[in-house]
Amino acid sequence: MNPIDPLQKLEQFSKHWHPHQIATVNEMQVLLAKVKGEFVWHQHDEEDELFQVVKGTLYIQFEDRTVEVNQGEIIVVPRGVKHCPMTKNDEEVHIMLFEKLSVKHTGDTQNSLTVDDYPKI
Amino acid sequence: MNPIDPLQKLEQFSKHWHPHQIATVNEMQVLLAKVKGEFVWHQHDEEDELFQVVKGTLYIQFEDRTVEVNQGEIIVVPRGVKHCPMTKNDEEVHIMLFEKLSVKHTGDTQNSLTVDDYPKI
Repeated sequence: MNPIDPLQKLEQFSKHWHPHQIATVNEMQVLLAKVKGEFVWHQHDEEDELFQVVKGTLYIQFEDRTVEVNQGEIIVVPRGVKHCPMTKNDEEVHIMLFEKLSVKHTGDTQNSLTVDDYPKI
Repeated sequence: MNPIDPLQKLEQFSKHWHPHQIATVNEMQVLLAKVKGEFVWHQHDEEDELFQVVKGTLYIQFEDRTVEVNQGEIIVVPRGVKHCPMTKNDEEVHIMLFEKLSVKHTGDTQNSLTVDDYPKI
């Protein structure tokens, strides 16, 4: 029951697209990630996913459009919706994710970016 | 699948201790609240509750201590833990809450502050 400072936690790692778990709440977890460039197209069949932008501007590509999510804003990607997060202009963006404990961040896509066990910090 | 700006949502209401729902994600909801002064002592027997401070400094009283949660920080109050949020020096503090859809913000305590249906904004 101690306060958690996401900015201080973000200083503890640098690898892109590699979420770190900073808290759990009910059956969900809070993850921090530093992202840059383009992720992979994927979907989560059974889970919604919430993104909160801590620093920078995140773009989420959907099949029919791309949505810009600015610092401080949140967006919920509903289950079953194919998406691919990205950043522009070589910007490193910091995000906080709220998702089920069971979720793989690459959803139905398994590739070299897939992290099987999120480090806890 | 549109971005949600908590700061813009916060402009839409002023009542203290009256959470407004801005999103749902899986079986949880994201609430915004403006708080000032002392809430009520309560606990949630079956649900953890996550607080994120958007503006100001929130204090959460537990039975054995009081924890200071600064702007940008988060804290998880585990299920079953008696707590009472408060602010100091007449400060109005803005918070974002992540909790189960089923939760009453006053937990096992029902009083004049209890909001039965959170307005959706």
